[in-house]
Amino acid sequence: MGVDQEPVTKKTWQELQAAKEAERNARIPEEWKLRPDQLPSEDVVDLRPIVKSCGILSPAELAITGEEYDATSLAAAIAAGKFTAVEVVTAFCKRAAVGQQLCNMLTEIMFADAIQRAKELDDIFASTGKVVGPLHGVPMTWKECFHFKGYDSTNGYMSRVFQPADRTSPLPALLQAAGAVVISKTNVPQTMLVAEAHNNVFGRTRNPVHARLTCGGSSGGEGASQAFRCSALGVGTDVGGSVRIPAACNGVYGYKPSFGVIPMAGYSYSGWPGSNTGVPAVSGPLGHSVRDLALFAAVVRAAEPWRFDPAVAPGVMEGEPAARRPVVGVMRASGIAPHPPVRRAIREAAAKLAAAGFEVREFAPPDLLAVRDISEQLFTLDGLSYPKGECARSGEPPVPSVLAIGFWDLPAKTQEEAWAWNARKGGVQKEMLDEWQRVGCDVVLAPVGPHTAPRPGEWTSDHYTVVWNMCDYPAIIVPFTHADPALDPADVEFKPMNAADKKNHDLYDPELFKGAPVALQIVGPRLGDKQLLKDAELLDSILNGTA
Amino acid sequence: MGVDQEPVTKKTWQELQAAKEAERNARIPEEWKLRPDQLPSEDVVDLRPIVKSCGILSPAELAITGEEYDATSLAAAIAAGKFTAVEVVTAFCKRAAVGQQLCNMLTEIMFADAIQRAKELDDIFASTGKVVGPLHGVPMTWKECFHFKGYDSTNGYMSRVFQPADRTSPLPALLQAAGAVVISKTNVPQTMLVAEAHNNVFGRTRNPVHARLTCGGSSGGEGASQAFRCSALGVGTDVGGSVRIPAACNGVYGYKPSFGVIPMAGYSYSGWPGSNTGVPAVSGPLGHSVRDLALFAAVVRAAEPWRFDPAVAPGVMEGEPAARRPVVGVMRASGIAPHPPVRRAIREAAAKLAAAGFEVREFAPPDLLAVRDISEQLFTLDGLSYPKGECARSGEPPVPSVLAIGFWDLPAKTQEEAWAWNARKGGVQKEMLDEWQRVGCDVVLAPVGPHTAPRPGEWTSDHYTVVWNMCDYPAIIVPFTHADPALDPADVEFKPMNAADKKNHDLYDPELFKGAPVALQIVGPRLGDKQLLKDAELLDSILNGTA
Repeated sequence: MGVDQEPVTKKTWQELQAAKEAERNARIPEEWKLRPDQLPSEDVVDLRPIVKSCGILSPAELAITGEEYDATSLAAAIAAGKFTAVEVVTAFCKRAAVGQQLCNMLTEIMFADAIQRAKELDDIFASTGKVVGPLHGVPMTWKECFHFKGYDSTNGYMSRVFQPADRTSPLPALLQAAGAVVISKTNVPQTMLVAEAHNNVFGRTRNPVHARLTCGGSSGGEGASQAFRCSALGVGTDVGGSVRIPAACNGVYGYKPSFGVIPMAGYSYSGWPGSNTGVPAVSGPLGHSVRDLALFAAVVRAAEPWRFDPAVAPGVMEGEPAARRPVVGVMRASGIAPHPPVRRAIREAAAKLAAAGFEVREFAPPDLLAVRDISEQLFTLDGLSYPKGECARSGEPPVPSVLAIGFWDLPAKTQEEAWAWNARKGGVQKEMLDEWQRVGCDVVLAPVGPHTAPRPGEWTSDHYTVVWNMCDYPAIIVPFTHADPALDPADVEFKPMNAADKKNHDLYDPELFKGAPVALQIVGPRLGDKQLLKDAELLDSILNGTA
Repeated sequence: MGVDQEPVTKKTWQELQAAKEAERNARIPEEWKLRPDQLPSEDVVDLRPIVKSCGILSPAELAITGEEYDATSLAAAIAAGKFTAVEVVTAFCKRAAVGQQLCNMLTEIMFADAIQRAKELDDIFASTGKVVGPLHGVPMTWKECFHFKGYDSTNGYMSRVFQPADRTSPLPALLQAAGAVVISKTNVPQTMLVAEAHNNVFGRTRNPVHARLTCGGSSGGEGASQAFRCSALGVGTDVGGSVRIPAACNGVYGYKPSFGVIPMAGYSYSGWPGSNTGVPAVSGPLGHSVRDLALFAAVVRAAEPWRFDPAVAPGVMEGEPAARRPVVGVMRASGIAPHPPVRRAIREAAAKLAAAGFEVREFAPPDLLAVRDISEQLFTLDGLSYPKGECARSGEPPVPSVLAIGFWDLPAKTQEEAWAWNARKGGVQKEMLDEWQRVGCDVVLAPVGPHTAPRPGEWTSDHYTVVWNMCDYPAIIVPFTHADPALDPADVEFKPMNAADKKNHDLYDPELFKGAPVALQIVGPRLGDKQLLKDAELLDSILNGTA
């Protein structure tokens, strides 16, 4: 699909855009549509309360889709007969419909199929008394780049519209077999390389928690989807921060696994098939609790995905993780000083853990600006010939946030140049490993970025996240505190370390950022995913007061 | 070392060759040198008996270095006080000195250092009553591409002579810490890409079992070293068959691990640092029993190498493997029909296992000639600019076997071309996995090549081995039977499937090949190394009658 990069249609990209928009609107039932007077004015920051005020969901539907439940407890409630799958799926479809009209986070809407599937699941439950699997009736949303039979997989490229997939990707198929019900796909940036969710096919996604700030990306539609609770569990992909950045921007949980834990085979490429940059992309969930992230991983691994995806490693998620109090390394900054809310979050989290009796040690990372240089070069080995070719096929222009990423025009590399960058990547991996061993930590507590969600298009440096892709360490995003002008004044004594540091400093505006979710990144050693999920659940319970 | 590819000396390569040869000869004590009349005539095929007839080793030394011991039992005998480390190391140094004069398998000779280290080990044992580790006093040889402080790491390039390493590579350092004593490095082909061991620095290595046939490669010096019993345990590397081919040619055991099991960091590159071909190189042992291969793996993993090598995976060799009777898939041929001795070995082995009650099933591999095409392209992404540059640095010419590999002149690839080949590799991985699942086997019994050791320079197709590198499945070489003109007549009804098949058929000469070792390749699923080692030990005991 899209691989030969030949023109596919005589229609202009604007005609295709209009047709695609009409298709999407037609997939939302009329009775779930907001009246014009229900749409918020420009000055409304938090869009989430509208789901209640608009009156489209019943009180019962608001409860089912509300904060009382995560995917784990929702699955338990369905299995216990408290709710039917149809009740749950319908409630989430309605909530997603409202979310879509406010935030534009959905791409391929599948409400009708979802409710039909929920009926089938209810019938099976009624006739057998058994659930089909641990996710029986749990509504899910998926990043645009997974194939679902009968629906497009455009990845935000106009060149790929109206070319429905002929099969469902193995990962969502596996979750469907475990009972999950897919209600929609979610938005991405054109090229999938940007911490944003804006493309010419579907437009821009808004952050439901703070509409003036970005939803992040590249799984930005999914971050917004989870924050609005369009589904109980979502899935994204991450090669530089694409699960973690939107999780952080929207104040939800996210998990970037080590490579080889979760299958990727058969998803929709956003670059040349077989591309081998030296930094592997992975799939991972976004959701409402650490235990939901662990549930996702457990369901996937129980299906023995190494039997169908050659890239999946067997044996790396075996056994029970230790019930331990992990030694916590704290990474505070590298290259670019995080904004005051992020610095405070790290400081308060470390203090809270120390007060709870955890051993907390300072962790000095490699130079993350150098890491960013390496990743930019590795991500552009082909000079981005693939996305440029896809744009050329339909005639659509690159969106502004793509042109702003800073590496759109980097040239293609020879093999020798590519390998020199790869060797530098190896140096970063070694430096990180040596520091981890020196510190003797079990997990590292780190910023997700040098800021909370900034304004749309302004998350241009992924160095706090891409380093963990480069080193292939698993990382979990845990929401923790919100930006608060009283606690997080601008740093008047700031002295920039470099131009990037100054640029980042200048982005901060305490009043504008007020209420922005802040998040922590909790990192484990490579392939230590199962233990990390358990450690992160414990740390979250202490940090967020559920312990 | 050698990375900037500037000329390093004003001397001609012939002058350097002579100086290097003189250095190596000076490292063999005069009293261990063969008299000219003890050198075999051209018609002697099996060179091994000369170690006894030459009189350089005492009967006790012949016993210590003989077939009565493998590394496991030798370590036990030293630990029990039956032999001192000095006795054992001296005996092997003498045997290696004789082997070198007959077969030219050694490169950097370290006899003096080895005996000194053995004295230290004996002193420790005498004063503490304890061994320093599970390999206390066990003599080892290592492929040329591992660094040892104070010795060259030329990889057969004249451009790198007389540039001693300033540190020992982590893997041999780990084995030394476990008590192993390194007595020499062993020969490789120029470029390390050939199934041969011939270069301008050290010359060509001969096969001690069958001097008219090749020793194989690229760990060819190590294959010859183990066959002559120059040491109790050797280590090679394998990216296309470089451990397995020489193990098979010389009739010894060999183990190519899955990537990530055994550390490779800090060895001496034979290409651009950071090169990322999509087919990973691995290190693995050659030796005298399957249990020795498992001992090597256990010692390495006990040192927790994931703490110093970022590429090593933790958690993949945990737990005890099952004591089971594995279901055996049998791969008989693909693309090129193996010579009669190889066909017979597979047939007899499968029959013997079936007779012993094992379930044996047919296994249909991917098209291995297509696999070979893919691997050739992936191994030449840079147009071999590195080895060509190394040759240019010293002015040495490529040796004939390098020019004969068939891909010396393939052009460099763009990233897009490289990735298209990588995508084809992904197709092979999927096809192999699907067949493995279809058959439902635990291990696969396969040829190592389309022939036993052929004449020097004639092992030009690695398709039976490189496929397992491409798929990253672990594989163990088990010697089984010898070529026998009475049992293995030329196939008079042969009808070639293709040109490569005809060429291979024409190499066979029942009388010339008489006595050549034949070997089996026993393959396990990716990262199933620990179980494979156990399965292979059981299968070997049945096939070779030790059960």
